[in-house]
Formats: sequence, C-alpha cells, structure tokens
Amino acid sequence: MTVAIVGVTGYGGGELARLLARHPGVEVTQVISDSSAGKPLASAFPGLAGTKLGALICEKKGGEITADVVFLAQENGYAMTVAGALLAAGKRVIDLSADFRLTDTAAWEKFYKMPPAAPELLAQAVYGMPELVGKEKIASARLIANPGCYVTASSLALAPLVKHHGLSGIIIDAKSGVSGAGRSKSDTIYRYAEMNETVRPYAVGGGHRHTPEIAQNIGASVLFTPHLVPMTRGILATCYGSTNASAAELTETLKQFYADAPFVVVREPGDWPSTKDVAGSNFCHLAVASTGEQAIVVSVIDNLVKGAAGQAIHNMNIMLGFDETAGLEGGGLWP
Amino acid sequence: MTVAIVGVTGYGGGELARLLARHPGVEVTQVISDSSAGKPLASAFPGLAGTKLGALICEKKGGEITADVVFLAQENGYAMTVAGALLAAGKRVIDLSADFRLTDTAAWEKFYKMPPAAPELLAQAVYGMPELVGKEKIASARLIANPGCYVTASSLALAPLVKHHGLSGIIIDAKSGVSGAGRSKSDTIYRYAEMNETVRPYAVGGGHRHTPEIAQNIGASVLFTPHLVPMTRGILATCYGSTNASAAELTETLKQFYADAPFVVVREPGDWPSTKDVAGSNFCHLAVASTGEQAIVVSVIDNLVKGAAGQAIHNMNIMLGFDETAGLEGGGLWP
Amino acid sequence: MTVAIVGVTGYGGGELARLLARHPGVEVTQVISDSSAGKPLASAFPGLAGTKLGALICEKKGGEITADVVFLAQENGYAMTVAGALLAAGKRVIDLSADFRLTDTAAWEKFYKMPPAAPELLAQAVYGMPELVGKEKIASARLIANPGCYVTASSLALAPLVKHHGLSGIIIDAKSGVSGAGRSKSDTIYRYAEMNETVRPYAVGGGHRHTPEIAQNIGASVLFTPHLVPMTRGILATCYGSTNASAAELTETLKQFYADAPFVVVREPGDWPSTKDVAGSNFCHLAVASTGEQAIVVSVIDNLVKGAAGQAIHNMNIMLGFDETAGLEGGGLWP
Amino acid sequence: MTVAIVGVTGYGGGELARLLARHPGVEVTQVISDSSAGKPLASAFPGLAGTKLGALICEKKGGEITADVVFLAQENGYAMTVAGALLAAGKRVIDLSADFRLTDTAAWEKFYKMPPAAPELLAQAVYGMPELVGKEKIASARLIANPGCYVTASSLALAPLVKHHGLSGIIIDAKSGVSGAGRSKSDTIYRYAEMNETVRPYAVGGGHRHTPEIAQNIGASVLFTPHLVPMTRGILATCYGSTNASAAELTETLKQFYADAPFVVVREPGDWPSTKDVAGSNFCHLAVASTGEQAIVVSVIDNLVKGAAGQAIHNMNIMLGFDETAGLEGGGLWP
Repeated sequence: MTVAIVGVTGYGGGELARLLARHPGVEVTQVISDSSAGKPLASAFPGLAGTKLGALICEKKGGEITADVVFLAQENGYAMTVAGALLAAGKRVIDLSADFRLTDTAAWEKFYKMPPAAPELLAQAVYGMPELVGKEKIASARLIANPGCYVTASSLALAPLVKHHGLSGIIIDAKSGVSGAGRSKSDTIYRYAEMNETVRPYAVGGGHRHTPEIAQNIGASVLFTPHLVPMTRGILATCYGSTNASAAELTETLKQFYADAPFVVVREPGDWPSTKDVAGSNFCHLAVASTGEQAIVVSVIDNLVKGAAGQAIHNMNIMLGFDETAGLEGGGLWP
Repeated sequence: MTVAIVGVTGYGGGELARLLARHPGVEVTQVISDSSAGKPLASAFPGLAGTKLGALICEKKGGEITADVVFLAQENGYAMTVAGALLAAGKRVIDLSADFRLTDTAAWEKFYKMPPAAPELLAQAVYGMPELVGKEKIASARLIANPGCYVTASSLALAPLVKHHGLSGIIIDAKSGVSGAGRSKSDTIYRYAEMNETVRPYAVGGGHRHTPEIAQNIGASVLFTPHLVPMTRGILATCYGSTNASAAELTETLKQFYADAPFVVVREPGDWPSTKDVAGSNFCHLAVASTGEQAIVVSVIDNLVKGAAGQAIHNMNIMLGFDETAGLEGGGLWP
Repeated sequence: MTVAIVGVTGYGGGELARLLARHPGVEVTQVISDSSAGKPLASAFPGLAGTKLGALICEKKGGEITADVVFLAQENGYAMTVAGALLAAGKRVIDLSADFRLTDTAAWEKFYKMPPAAPELLAQAVYGMPELVGKEKIASARLIANPGCYVTASSLALAPLVKHHGLSGIIIDAKSGVSGAGRSKSDTIYRYAEMNETVRPYAVGGGHRHTPEIAQNIGASVLFTPHLVPMTRGILATCYGSTNASAAELTETLKQFYADAPFVVVREPGDWPSTKDVAGSNFCHLAVASTGEQAIVVSVIDNLVKGAAGQAIHNMNIMLGFDETAGLEGGGLWP
Repeated sequence: MTVAIVGVTGYGGGELARLLARHPGVEVTQVISDSSAGKPLASAFPGLAGTKLGALICEKKGGEITADVVFLAQENGYAMTVAGALLAAGKRVIDLSADFRLTDTAAWEKFYKMPPAAPELLAQAVYGMPELVGKEKIASARLIANPGCYVTASSLALAPLVKHHGLSGIIIDAKSGVSGAGRSKSDTIYRYAEMNETVRPYAVGGGHRHTPEIAQNIGASVLFTPHLVPMTRGILATCYGSTNASAAELTETLKQFYADAPFVVVREPGDWPSTKDVAGSNFCHLAVASTGEQAIVVSVIDNLVKGAAGQAIHNMNIMLGFDETAGLEGGGLWP
C-alpha cells in the first residue's frame, strides 16, 4: 500500500513522514511540497538525512498522485478543493485541516470566515476520533476529517463524563507548546526571544476555532481558553465541570469507556500527567480530581502526534485493516 | 535607615538584595544565611560580584540584629519564633513566609500541619497587600505578613469583581515559573532535564496552601489549580467566575479600584498580558473578557517580585513613609 | 533472544527500554532497579504507560539474571564487580559506564579516582565504537565498553582527520544538554530555575574524564572544554585542529571513511548541523570548514542515543548478527 | 540633559529605554520608531506600561531631533547618513550599529557589502569600549561607535593577554542567546519551535562580521565561531590562545588591567562564570585556565546590556561627566 503526503514540510507533514517511515504495512512514495519541490525531503527535515525517506525527492503540488492513500496536511480551504477528485480516483483521503470537521456549516462560516465544503463531500467525511466515533465508521470511510489538537485533548477528557455524569458548566483551560501554531507563522510572538520565559493566553472569551468542534464532540457547550507556554510540543488541558460524582467514580467511568482504546491511559487521582509523559507518542493520559461539586480532568497529548499525525495514522490503520497501533507502538521520548 | 535580610541566599532573599541595592532611602547592612555564613554575598549570587552589596559578608542566624528593618525570608514556622523579640527590640518586621497570613488558625493547622503563631503576634500582624488592605493600615504596622505569590496574582484579579459584581463559582487556573518552588527543593521534578518541555499540574482538586489565603482576601471560596510551566519566573492566573457584567464594565471596575495603585496596570479586553510583560518588575497586569455569563480575568506578576520581594519592599516604603515606588521604579526586563 | 537492563531507571537505562521496545529481534525480559523494585517500569517512565514494557515489574539488583544479553547502566565501578560472573554464565555484557573504556590504567586512576577493573576483564573488553573499531572485533566480543557521550561526538569528528591529514593542536569545545549529568545528580546547578537561560562551562583546562578516552580513540592529545547549555538532550562538539587541507578535501576524507557507516551523515561545508537534527535518533552529523590553516569540524549527536543507549544497541546488533540498524531506524523528533 | 532614542522598538532600543528610565542625570524626551509612530512606547514594550517612559509617544523618523544626546539603534548603513547633520547641530551621537566601528574600510566593504561612512565622519568617531580605549578619548568624543556584542565579550577577555603575554593562535568559540539576532529577523530558525532544544553554529570558518572588529581591538588575528543556544540573553565566549603563562599569572594580568574598570569582574581560576551571572547587568565576568601551553579565557556578558545598550550608556556617562556607573548600578536578575 502506498502513501502520499501533501504539505510534507509543515510540522504535521513532517511527523507523518517520521512515523510512517517505520510503519510495517505502507510505503511513503510521494512527498509533496511546493517550497521544497525538487529537493530531497531531508533538506527540510535534516533529522531524516541518512534515511530512505530523507532521500525521497519532493514534488510540486498539482501533479498526479499515484499513491493509494493521501494525507492532506495543508492550510484550511485546500482539502475541499482536491478531495473530490482524489475520492473519484479511488483513493483514501485523510485530511488534517479543519475543512470537514464541522457538521454545522453556520459555525464553520462564523469561525473560519470561508465557505464550507460542498455538502456531498461533508456527507462522506467521517470524523476521525476513533475512541468517540467508533472503529466501524472509520473502517468504512473513504474521507477522514482528522480532529484538531486542542479538540482531541479536551474531547477525550470530557465526552465520557458528559455522557455518563451529565457534566455541565464546562471550562477548558488549555496550555499548548508553540509548534501548534505551525511552521509558517512568522509573527514576532512566535520568535524564540519573545516566546521564551513567558505564558501567553489568546482568544480569551471563547473565540478559538476549536470551541465548536469540542462542543460537537462532547454534546455540551464549553468555555475554552488556550495559552501558549514555552515548550515546543505538548498540550495539557485542565477541564472543569459540575458534577457530584467522586474522583473514584469518574475515574472508573473513564476506565470503562476507554477499555478498548489502546492509546488512552487513565491514571489514578493524584498521579497527575505532564506533557513530557507523552512527548513523541500517540498516547493521551487522563486523571480526575473532584471536590464533590466540581470535577477537574487533566488531559495530556503530544499536539503533533495524537493531536495530528499520529491520530491520522491511527485512522489509516483502521481504514486499511492494520493493527490499530501499527507504526505507533512505544512510548514517548523521556526526558 | 538600615535593613537586615534573614535567609538572604534563597530566591526571595536574593531578590530583596537585588532590589534594595538601588533603594534611595535604606541601606542593607546585614545579610544573614547559615549556608553562606562568613562568605561574601556574591558567593551565593555571582550577579552581585563587583557591587557594594555583593561584598557584604553573610552572618549566621542567631546573632544580634542591629538593623532597623528586618526582612524574614525563611521557611514557614521560623518567623513565629523570632518576630516577638524583634518587635520587642523596636524593629519593623516584614515576613515573607506564611506564618502570619491566615487569620483562621484552623485553616492554618489544616493546610500547614503545624501550630499557628501565638495569638498576640497574629493580632499585631498586618496583611501586606497594599491595594486591598489600604495604605493606612500598613503605614502603622510593625509586623507585616507578606502575601503568597499565587495569592497576589489571584486576589488582585478577583477581589474587586467579587466586591462590586458578586463574582461567584470561581475557578483559578494558575501557571507558575519554577522558581516558585524555592531554591532548596531538590526533588527530581525540579531538575532541568525533567522540567524542561513539560507542563505539570499539582495539588489538583483544591489542596494547595494558597487556597484559604485567596478566599480570605476576596471573601469568596475558590477552586484553585496550580501548574508548573518551563520558565524560571512569572505567574499567570486565568480566573473564571459567573457574572452578567460585560467586559467593559468589569474593566472599568478594575480601573476605578486600582486608580491609586501604582503597580497595577489594567489593560483593555483583547490586550492579554503575558508573564514576560512583568519579568523583573513589581507590576501586576490585568485584563478581562466576558461571555455575558462568565468573566475571565487574566493576571500576571513576577512571582519573586510582586509575588514576594517587591511587594515586601512596597510594604516597607509605606511603613517608612518613602514614596511607594522607591526602589521599584521602572519596567521589567524584555525580551 | 532476551535482554536485561540493569539500572533501568536512569536516563540511559530508560532510553535502552524505549529503543529496545521496538527492536524486532530481542525481547526485554528483565528490568532491574533498586529504586523502583517491585513497581512497574511505567512508574519511573510514565511515557511507557500503556505499553507492554511499561507493565514489566522492576527487580532488585543482585537477583538472578536469566536474560541472554545484559546491559549495565550503572555508576562507574559497578560493572567491574559483576561482569566477570555474567561472562562466566555465558552472557553477553554491554557496559554503559566507563569501567572498561580506558586501556591506560594510570589514566583511569588519575581521572576516575578508583582502582581499575581486573586485567583479565580489561583484556576481554572491546571498545564499542563500531565506526572506529571495526565490526569484526565487536561481532566477536562478549564484553563491550560502550563509549562516553562527549567522546563519541568528538572521536567521530576527529579520528579520520588525524589519521589521514595529521590534524594537530586539537581543541574541542563541546556543548551538552543537561541530561548528560544523569538522573541522580541533585546539585543546585541542575535545577530548572538555575540552569535555564544560562551557558555554564565546567572542567575548563582539561580535567574532564572524557579527555583521555578521546585521545585514546583518535591517537592525538586534545584540549577539551565542556559546557552545559539549557536544553535536555544533544551534544554539539566544535573541533579545531591545524591542517592545510581544504574543506572539500576534509569532507571527502570523512565521506570515504564513513562510507559504510549507516549512522554517520557527512554534510557539505556550510550546511552546519544543529543538535535538533539528531534529537532522539542514533545519527551523528558532521560538517567541516577550513581557513587553509585550521579545520573546524562540527559534530552533533543525541547524547542519550548515539552517545549512550543507541550506540549500545548498535553494538548488540553487530554482536548478535542483526541488521546494524535494527530498532534504530528512522530519524529524530523534529521540531 | 535630554536624550533621543532612534530605533527604540528594537531589542537594543528597548534596553536603552529600560536603563535610561532610571538614570539620575538624563531624561528621555524623544523615542523614535516608524513602526510604532503615534503610539505610546508601552505598546511596543508592555513591560513599560504604568511607567512615565511607557506613556511617551513614539515619533516617526525624519522629524526634528531636539534632544542633546542621540542614540542611534538602527540597521547598518543608517547612522552614516544622519550622523553628520546631528553633529553639525551640536549633538552627541552614540551609534549602536557597525557604521563607524572599523577603521579599515577595505575590511568594512568585504564584511558589510556596502560603502563605508565618509572619511571625515570615520575620523571623528571614537570606538566606545572604555576599558580598552581609555576614558579620556571617550570623554572628548562627539560621535561614539558602540562595539558589537561578540566583540565586547571577546576583546575584554583577550586584549590584555595579547598585550602582556603575546597570546597567539587565538580561537574564539562563542555562544549567544537568540536576542542577538535582533527583533526584525523573521527566518524560521529564530522561531521558538525550531530554536528550542538545539545548539546552532553559524558563519563557521571565520566569515562573521565581528571577526575584523575583534582583531582591530586586540591586535591579533582570530578564528571566531559563533553559536546560537536556546536562551534569550547572554554571550559566553570561550577563548583559546597559546602562552606559557600560568593561570595565576594570567589572572593577575587581567586584575591589574581592569583595576579601574567598574564593570569588569575577574574571577579566580575554577570559579567559571555563566551567562546567568550577568543577565540584565552591565558586567563582564572573566576567568582563566591554563595548561601551561594554552590559556582558556571564559568571558560572559549580557549581549543587550554590556554588549549594546549598557555599554552605550557607559559611554554617555563618560562623555557627559556623570559617574561611570550612573543608571547601571546593581547586579543582574537571578535566577
């Protein structure tokens, strides 16, 4: 089975390359990037120098895609223009942008300031969060809408507790590494000298684009506040919500909900996860505290793996009938 | 006017030395530290090499204190054993530990696991947060209980809004630099290799010692969750609470409340503060968002300055009749 | 083939676990650590939670070792006390400490301040730097002395140029991440608050223990100055030496020397490597400049992988007849 | 005495503002920046919010300069176009760019790729490194060429040893924080996600522009290799050179040379300086080791203070007859 990565030189594209390079069942045969066209992939990712994949020559966008599976790792608005033709050509498409994530097109237009994808494409897209959507739906999908990073950390923490304990009044306070902003952002605030030694909140008050996607996933509205912290990778979401359930009860609910989820680890109350625990891996760690009135759920992921490339490969594995964890085995890099 | 610093080689003590070195009205004449006794202060703080203060020889604890004003920067439980004698000798005492902060001795015993200070000392102590307590009370104090770092960031954000808008259901999600743990903590988690590239929540569920102190200051109970982030200095508190007031109304309340507070800067909604904005300075920056149901107040301080040494000097200035900002002028270090 | 890791909860031991977990030909069956005895490995490395290896229970040191291959990742002086018995029991032993690295026992006693290993053990030990020692010697070894981290970065840069160009007057200025100090060092300088935002030279003037090991490898004396920089992983060695050869000639020499070395990447002059290029991978990247009188060779490795656990596994692969790159394929984590 | 800062919103300009705000003898009356014209200075430096200087409105370049002293903190090539008119108007000019640093105009054209300043301007310019040039020359200057940051760290370390011990074969291996690149550099490598957790050499082989300036200062040629390390501020230069002198002799030479230099601290061999020791201060710390054949001098400065704004104010103090240390007293920020 062959794979193409469109937008390979961004952070998400690079992670796809790194992880797929050791996947036992697929071969990356096309790496596509306008900025690196004609050059070996290692010119954009020196860490791939000396590897087979690092020697693969990048192609310009717009040429023929011969691979069986296509990962799209481009800015919002691109996938909706090419997915139709790729599907018509019989390919599986996994899109890491937001183009097919929201079923509510009004919310799409409000938060993304652009027209939504065509209805027939939206209708085909399956939202690719295996733990919440179910593996059957993903197995039969041809077009996957791969979830957002903050969304993944938050939804895995909250969805079971909203469903089984009616968690309400939800506040999500999220802390993200700077790679979440992507490789192309050139604003001064992303420079080392200005981002080091600082914590920086943004979109305070609810305006972040991931807000409607979280609400769609968990079936409850949320107040979501993202912050940048001085680290490259990782998201920690501290999620608050009202419930009378005890920490033990909430922990048990999470354990049962994720009993068959190979990438979700539910830890005991008091054993609080840190983002370093999942650096470079596809795991999500969860742990819950309770005051008797409020639950506090802590959730950590690597934003570029479980929050992007790793989850996309997890979806591919299910679509193609591989073992769910193929190419994603093993823990993170520590320290 | 002469000053002694007891516990000068901790992080808080070092900041007292750094800041007092350029104070126009006092002279540091005694620096006290068992671990550096007999050595010049610059041996513990190489950054003071070449300065007058850096050449001052550290004294052992327990000798005579000849200075007029005594800053105590020791572990909890120490100040309560020495403050009585210092006050009896006619000295002003400013304590940076928690010994005299809580008026509720039951809360003290629960959170600090030790007997409280003697009632006659507690009765004399004035809680040293000038913006909330009022300058008159501080001006006439002989013994100051200098507030905690998380407490300062949180209380300045919330007290006016609880008082004027009845803010309720308060959640404080705080992010702190690692210097907040102090210089003597040797746990593995404070090592560079394990603290770098991670966000680490702790005391999740409400057990942190600063919780009752915040509640005492703002007159409302809070759910407080602290996190360590990979930076040396700074605290950012993201504070959530229920109110129908608009961001403009809440901002106006803060502006009026802090009209005479030289170290509190109230910023417009959308102009979110970062901890780097106050690195090395005694300022607290505040800004508010609102959803119409929930207010979100962002507050930043330097934990070692406004959250410790700077606030202590502010208190001293008021006690001794100096200009409030003496020795604390100027902005932070940027970038 | 089964593997035991003694000292599994240190940084080097943890990397062995992480990397061996995805090795196709061996299974880790024993993880040994006094500090974590009786607890699952994931309690020391939360990043392994949810993996098979993470569930393995740590054993106390001193029990029976049943595995075929034993990695010793302990402080200096330990391996020399146990290697004899392990070899006698027919096991392969790969030691990550310094015990068997130096053939000059006088240098050992001077730099390590302890008696050397018994002569019969030293005689059996093969120095495990495959690129310099040759694969044949390693293939037939029963006891491997795995090289030091600074030594690996420096020797790979310099050995070919000393041999083929008579490079002389060598100065090595090395910059290391803080994990190089190991997990057990509790000195204040390794704390986050004091190691962040600083560069810290040490052992200036030639006293570092890796000095004689480098000299032994390259056949020339060196002046070696190490520095700690505020990052967790990585070593960059900037190596200076006198030669008239051009950058092109020196680069060609390196390319030919490492033509069969799967983990050494020789880059063109001007394409300077950074430590991030090899984070998490077993690669060493080299590049050379020349003034016509002086050569400057830049060398980067991940100190915990190529500088410790990865090189140890490379040695194991050669000893056991696996593909050299088994379990070590793929590039680093980027960004 | 009034002061104007042209280019106030760069890193060097911002440091001038921060430091001059507490200078006892001058008042900043004009802050000039095209990018922030019409806005208060605090809009570019939030850390100045709430201070008098933060409220000063930025002016566009090209308007009348009314201040007595003008600091030029602009890109290379600007000062040479305006300095003549400013001098003719009777103002003192302190230029932080490279325009007037090199007396060798051939070297200027080679390294800076632009025509040099007019000869009559170059003839007037005094090179502003007080410790090497002497205070008398600076006191009588009208136009100061303020030195480069790497140059300052290196020249203070080496000049006395070249002069008194004939130090030769000099290699300078320098490590700099990222703020040295300036605020306007938008290259990907300066982004947090790519600069964090890496050491990055550049201009390897001698091509850096500071090379001829160092040679001019110390009277000997050097091989200079700069590296970026993941921190915001600070330069550490490790300087190597041949001499038979002992560490004690070399230390004594430095102590005598800098006996009257209030900002140079010579430390004992073994007491190695780190960049954190001078963060935010105008100090340079030096210490020397020797092998009997090679000296190794370690030098640290804050690149934005002693390496730029602080040294510029030191020059101003001497020109205007203030105490040398006015506005620059006190040590750095620690930790």
